[in-house]
Amino acid sequence: MRNLKLTLAYDGTDFSGWQIQPGQPTVQGTLAEAIQKITQEMPALQGAGRTDAGVHAWGQVASFKTNSDLSPEIFRRALNALLPPTVRVRHAEDVGLDFHPRWLAHAKTYRYRIYRGRVLSPFVRQYVLHDPYPLNFSTMAEAARYFEGEHDFTSFAASTGSEEEDEARTMVRRIDQSELLDEAVGLREASSGSLAGQDAPCTEEWVYTIRSRSFLRYMVRKIVGTLLEVGRGRLPASDIPRLFEVRYAACSGPTAPPHGLCLESIEYPISQQSPTGHS
Amino acid sequence: MRNLKLTLAYDGTDFSGWQIQPGQPTVQGTLAEAIQKITQEMPALQGAGRTDAGVHAWGQVASFKTNSDLSPEIFRRALNALLPPTVRVRHAEDVGLDFHPRWLAHAKTYRYRIYRGRVLSPFVRQYVLHDPYPLNFSTMAEAARYFEGEHDFTSFAASTGSEEEDEARTMVRRIDQSELLDEAVGLREASSGSLAGQDAPCTEEWVYTIRSRSFLRYMVRKIVGTLLEVGRGRLPASDIPRLFEVRYAACSGPTAPPHGLCLESIEYPISQQSPTGHS
Repeated sequence: MRNLKLTLAYDGTDFSGWQIQPGQPTVQGTLAEAIQKITQEMPALQGAGRTDAGVHAWGQVASFKTNSDLSPEIFRRALNALLPPTVRVRHAEDVGLDFHPRWLAHAKTYRYRIYRGRVLSPFVRQYVLHDPYPLNFSTMAEAARYFEGEHDFTSFAASTGSEEEDEARTMVRRIDQSELLDEAVGLREASSGSLAGQDAPCTEEWVYTIRSRSFLRYMVRKIVGTLLEVGRGRLPASDIPRLFEVRYAACSGPTAPPHGLCLESIEYPISQQSPTGHS
Repeated sequence: MRNLKLTLAYDGTDFSGWQIQPGQPTVQGTLAEAIQKITQEMPALQGAGRTDAGVHAWGQVASFKTNSDLSPEIFRRALNALLPPTVRVRHAEDVGLDFHPRWLAHAKTYRYRIYRGRVLSPFVRQYVLHDPYPLNFSTMAEAARYFEGEHDFTSFAASTGSEEEDEARTMVRRIDQSELLDEAVGLREASSGSLAGQDAPCTEEWVYTIRSRSFLRYMVRKIVGTLLEVGRGRLPASDIPRLFEVRYAACSGPTAPPHGLCLESIEYPISQQSPTGHS
């Protein structure tokens, strides 16, 4: 028996989220099915983050125990051959039998992309929130900083259940990073130096990055929804601490739509990392 | 009566190309339908380039005559409200009645993206050719340069019909630019300075850019297919001039798949450009 750790990228558009649900297309279900075809075993597949329907991942981590003796690289290729192009195994490696992708995660990083350009490029339409209307970047960036540190996130959680309710009943979370940046980079321009300046798209994108050991359900999207309220001038940035105090779910801004969100990376203690690292 | 010029971006994945065909989803048909809903007129919609099924556009140009007196900007917004998110009108402007997007084009620029990374990112899967196998970049870049200048492209055209057969019977085309560049830029990395170096994708992308006043059907994809043959060592770069000489369609490399190709931009004489330019 061994334990295999997978690093996954997926386009969440057509999935009902990570977690397996009968009769629904889920990433976990799709991946478990592919593993089963290879190993002839029914895998107990663990994921680090239960991304919601429509949420994407670039660095989701999952693991499963198997008796198969295929090398991690052969496993990776076989899985990619069986999986739809919307799900890719970026890396596979052997880890200790006690590895658990969620319990052992030191930090998860999520990113939320807000596309500020007037016209939403058809090429990124599934990966960004399009908001071309007036928004005050400075107050939003200021508000984002208020989320750093240890806070009670009751006001920023789903009103029923939590993403990790079995892990911890407390609604207190410590946020290592909460930052809004104006990337001001043409996505496609960046990939086409040759055409820069010719008819390159004038993309304006703001990216919100949040890093923490764990999150409550809908927490990132509720924070983003709140930042947007601040940007529209409906809530002063300095009111964020009061929202922590009220501890009532209805007190945050609306939940931002899922398709702008991406689970970017997950960090583990060095001892859990492979000698070669991710690639 | 006036003439409106539209600059269009589209994701060609789910279209049977630009040109209207009964019973098929086409960009021209989709756009004509949206215009008709606004103007109540059946538009004679002209496009600059007849992109094939699966080919994308960032800077396609189309025009149509109308009696509507809506401002170009209102037209643009109304069209974007009616069009699917896979087709966007980036710009709309009034042009002279004699403007024709194809006849008047000085130059069209196409780009072909070749994704060299081991794992195809699910986020760009519809916009790049994934070729992670050994390819010699230098010989391909050298071969690309042979296409610049005036040549007979019979060997690089569809064996029946030409993209612009009604424009010119000759198979001679003048290529202003034919260049392969190693972008070596992580697309997503470029849009996420904040995460660069952390777990950012190590994207390797090669981009082929070709610029000419007009192209023969399948010409760009046949050139790319030929460059790939050169990269695989099956054809020396210095043999490209001989392929021009043989003037036989079967003599080029295979036609590269459509989804890596994008009609990037179209240039017109200054007199045909709006005072404000594209944005």
